[in-house]
Amino acid sequence: MLRTHTCGELRIEQVNQTVTLCGWVQKVRDTGGLMWIDLRDRYGITQLSFEENSSEASVLETARSLGREFVVKATGTVVERFSKNDKIPTGQIEIKVTDLEVLNPSEIPPFIIEDNTDGGEDLRMKYRYLDLRRNEVREKLQLRSRMAIAIRNYLAEQEFIEVETPVLIKSTPEGARDFVVPSRMNPGEFYALPQSPQTFKQLLMVSGFDRYFQIVKCFRDEDLRADRQPEFTQIDCEMSFVNQDDVLGNFEGMTRHLFEKIKGVSFEGDFPRMDYAEAMRRYGSDKPDIRFGMEFVELNEVAQNKGFNVFDQAELVLGICAKGCAEYTRKQLDALTNFVKRPQVGAKGMVYVKCNPDGSFKSSVDKFYSQEDLKAWAEKAGAEAGDLLLVLSGNTDTTRKQMNELRLHMGTELGLRDKDVFKPLWVVDFPLLEWDEETERYHAMHHPFTSPKQEDMVKLDTAPGEVRANAYDLVINGVEIGGGSIRIHDKGIQKLMFKHLGFTDEEAKAQFGFLMDAFEYGAPPHGGIAFGFDRLCALFGGSDSIRDYIAFPKNTSGRDVMIDSPAAVDSKQLDELGMSLKA
Amino acid sequence: MLRTHTCGELRIEQVNQTVTLCGWVQKVRDTGGLMWIDLRDRYGITQLSFEENSSEASVLETARSLGREFVVKATGTVVERFSKNDKIPTGQIEIKVTDLEVLNPSEIPPFIIEDNTDGGEDLRMKYRYLDLRRNEVREKLQLRSRMAIAIRNYLAEQEFIEVETPVLIKSTPEGARDFVVPSRMNPGEFYALPQSPQTFKQLLMVSGFDRYFQIVKCFRDEDLRADRQPEFTQIDCEMSFVNQDDVLGNFEGMTRHLFEKIKGVSFEGDFPRMDYAEAMRRYGSDKPDIRFGMEFVELNEVAQNKGFNVFDQAELVLGICAKGCAEYTRKQLDALTNFVKRPQVGAKGMVYVKCNPDGSFKSSVDKFYSQEDLKAWAEKAGAEAGDLLLVLSGNTDTTRKQMNELRLHMGTELGLRDKDVFKPLWVVDFPLLEWDEETERYHAMHHPFTSPKQEDMVKLDTAPGEVRANAYDLVINGVEIGGGSIRIHDKGIQKLMFKHLGFTDEEAKAQFGFLMDAFEYGAPPHGGIAFGFDRLCALFGGSDSIRDYIAFPKNTSGRDVMIDSPAAVDSKQLDELGMSLKA
Repeated sequence: MLRTHTCGELRIEQVNQTVTLCGWVQKVRDTGGLMWIDLRDRYGITQLSFEENSSEASVLETARSLGREFVVKATGTVVERFSKNDKIPTGQIEIKVTDLEVLNPSEIPPFIIEDNTDGGEDLRMKYRYLDLRRNEVREKLQLRSRMAIAIRNYLAEQEFIEVETPVLIKSTPEGARDFVVPSRMNPGEFYALPQSPQTFKQLLMVSGFDRYFQIVKCFRDEDLRADRQPEFTQIDCEMSFVNQDDVLGNFEGMTRHLFEKIKGVSFEGDFPRMDYAEAMRRYGSDKPDIRFGMEFVELNEVAQNKGFNVFDQAELVLGICAKGCAEYTRKQLDALTNFVKRPQVGAKGMVYVKCNPDGSFKSSVDKFYSQEDLKAWAEKAGAEAGDLLLVLSGNTDTTRKQMNELRLHMGTELGLRDKDVFKPLWVVDFPLLEWDEETERYHAMHHPFTSPKQEDMVKLDTAPGEVRANAYDLVINGVEIGGGSIRIHDKGIQKLMFKHLGFTDEEAKAQFGFLMDAFEYGAPPHGGIAFGFDRLCALFGGSDSIRDYIAFPKNTSGRDVMIDSPAAVDSKQLDELGMSLKA
Repeated sequence: MLRTHTCGELRIEQVNQTVTLCGWVQKVRDTGGLMWIDLRDRYGITQLSFEENSSEASVLETARSLGREFVVKATGTVVERFSKNDKIPTGQIEIKVTDLEVLNPSEIPPFIIEDNTDGGEDLRMKYRYLDLRRNEVREKLQLRSRMAIAIRNYLAEQEFIEVETPVLIKSTPEGARDFVVPSRMNPGEFYALPQSPQTFKQLLMVSGFDRYFQIVKCFRDEDLRADRQPEFTQIDCEMSFVNQDDVLGNFEGMTRHLFEKIKGVSFEGDFPRMDYAEAMRRYGSDKPDIRFGMEFVELNEVAQNKGFNVFDQAELVLGICAKGCAEYTRKQLDALTNFVKRPQVGAKGMVYVKCNPDGSFKSSVDKFYSQEDLKAWAEKAGAEAGDLLLVLSGNTDTTRKQMNELRLHMGTELGLRDKDVFKPLWVVDFPLLEWDEETERYHAMHHPFTSPKQEDMVKLDTAPGEVRANAYDLVINGVEIGGGSIRIHDKGIQKLMFKHLGFTDEEAKAQFGFLMDAFEYGAPPHGGIAFGFDRLCALFGGSDSIRDYIAFPKNTSGRDVMIDSPAAVDSKQLDELGMSLKA
């Protein structure tokens, strides 16, 4: 090694040792007589010192030539510092430099390489390799690396085998859009990049692998939102001879282990479970944030038939109680009304009821409701003096969705969504199918391999929307961290499912024939789960954005602005593929 | 779990316990009065037993309905076996079945699912999920999984950070052909799949990550040979502030650790090192198999100028000594001659000299050489009575390559290439450039980021072919397991290198501008290595074929015959991409 130590490891015990450090110049202070340089590497910062009177002239000259981010190699003696710095582990010592070599100079970086940088998002993405020098950013990727190792070791101990499934697979029209890869050796034909290794992991169960996992890149050619990436990473898992409880138990174990190992957080008792219908009723979301209450209260009984047309005509009148918010000003209430009226939320308006400290009520619909009426609302909602009731109405699904947004907004506003508090929740019994307005047919809510609940099978023909699936999500702090299901392992049921999803026999055979074939040869009962690894890392890191946890992310146009990709290719290359661009 | 135990864990200690097992029917034996079933899962085989007189009729009926590969769930009591089987760990006991459930029936499999199967390669690939049921095949993938974990833990302990680099990157004309991925959001533009994360890992060094690794899929759109796959896996590593010795030492450590941990094999002393020129001279290969000697002996001095035209006109007369082979028959010698004359080897002929036990010599060129002459050859080659000398001649490079083939062939024939013996070797000081006859210019032998040896820089203009690189390969048993180099970190030298490789400034900027830019901002000295993980697994497993160590491999046409990929896609899909197929 060019160095004897890193910039993070020298302590008072090493005083008088001769050492060599390598790193980047973080900061230079020059008083004329004395000069200090903060030398930085991944492991820390160590102070180099120079003295006009005792350092060699050539060393001083080199030191004075240094700028920010120069890479240097410094040899010298460890000495105790005169003024110590308790903020860094190496703060007791400094290096009296006797030899200094510039390993590489640096231009002035386009932004400051410190925790608080002056670089905007675009600039930092273009120079991502400089952004990654910032401790904050690098530490996120180190967290990710530590998490991956912890997950692998845990699963390996549970007898899971990591199997790499292929990246060049086959396109299927089901689900999101695939990225395709033209095959030169098979002109006119294409591979597709996997949206998940779903069918392969099921085949591995047919193969008797019993327990499989993989931390694996997946791909989806969708229009990107802020927190979506065209390539993302899954922790993909599958088990044989299991029922739903087994899968939940096993991956609750993994989640606990990870929280303990990485964050020192332990959970008391089992993770709570809630069925989909209840989650929608109480929180208007299949991924409720249960760090705080503010549960939905249905007010139809007390709010209807009092002459307020809006409520009378609504399918659902829904309230939430914001504790201690009765003193909200006109301005604050208007802001909330504006929030729910934003197109992203889409409510027509909002009704409030202030439960005044003196026991009276003040509401935006005072002219329709007496104090007695409002008292009944408050009682129903468990609101006490000092609280604020917020009420939305309309048809059931829409109102719940809108109220979910308002509840989360209030939770944030009231500081009830602490990033350091973690509240896991299993949401279970998802519907098997969901109606798609556009194509006017049912789609698989999870995917076509999810098994229906035995007892709901009879409704497949009569009320397909009511059939529940053996499907489950792990939700933490309102974020869907993982999802999975017990799969179909019976070829008859799989056929039935394809039929209900509108596949002809030919289509099913063309796309999933190999899986149907596999089911002929002794497929075991099996099920699994996949975790969004990028999102899990963001949750552990206390961030909302998965981009921070990806070394080289793409922007919302799917571009890597650093390497300037995608890009045009040689026409010769297209010729070889038997392809051409449309005019 | 549907089971209480696996099929591999019950022992005599569990006698009298009631247990439930799940698995596949491996074998049924029915004597009428007694019936046994071998139940198999990943963990082992357990014998189920049934008795005409004591088992329930319905259980017997179910048992008699079972065929090979049916999936069943069996509950019963563990009893001591009457006739024990010492070959399997569960051989002391059997399960007296009281309850038997068919979880899934099976068609008769297209081939026998045992270590010695009757299935041909094509059939097993089409039904790969059944092939993977065979212990032999599954164990190879389990070995792979164990190796990956061991590697990760070792590197993590050495402070390496695993970073996932992007799969959707940018195409570069340098090197092998890229797979390209059309971008729907950026019509007319393409991503490329990485042939390696080379530039990204170098950028991570610029970022100060100091130590990076990744076990990562890479892609190469080449015409496939038997042991090549379009997607393959690398253990990709990079370190900062290192010289060549540091990299070699570190990854020698990793290799040792892996051999000890996985195979219980330790190596005495340092791995030997040999420079490229010496390897070519002694073995005619940059990846010599040093499990056996049979080194090349240059015979020009003793074999030329005796009137044998073929040798006299040759640039090189090269011999190897096959110990104890003087008794080879005419037929055996003809076979060797035919071997070297195969187009894959390409020699015009072969000369032999038998060193007879009585001290006389017998050669195919007796008429040109006296017994004295041949004795001089034998002495030069260290051949003793009873040995056989094999001699080839021609121009230097070609003769060495041909002799390398012959040497390996003889090594195999004489049983000198024991799969259980491991002989690692570092080959160092590779040439920087190699001449390409086709394009009539120099190519980077490793890649354009490899640094030249300081002392050879002066020859870059005058004798580019003689410039040595700071490049190295790890070779084990004649297989290239890993290769790497100390990289260029100076933008001036990188520019010079691109110039020598025939890049214009514009081309260099368009393709690698981001890396050149990065070198402006303080790039540290760095270097690394990448291991072929598929090949490493095959070496550890004692196999020549990497395909066995890939769960779902592709054939030599790049097809996955199981899922039938690549395949045609919807014309709608191509429309969205702005692409069309050429007529």
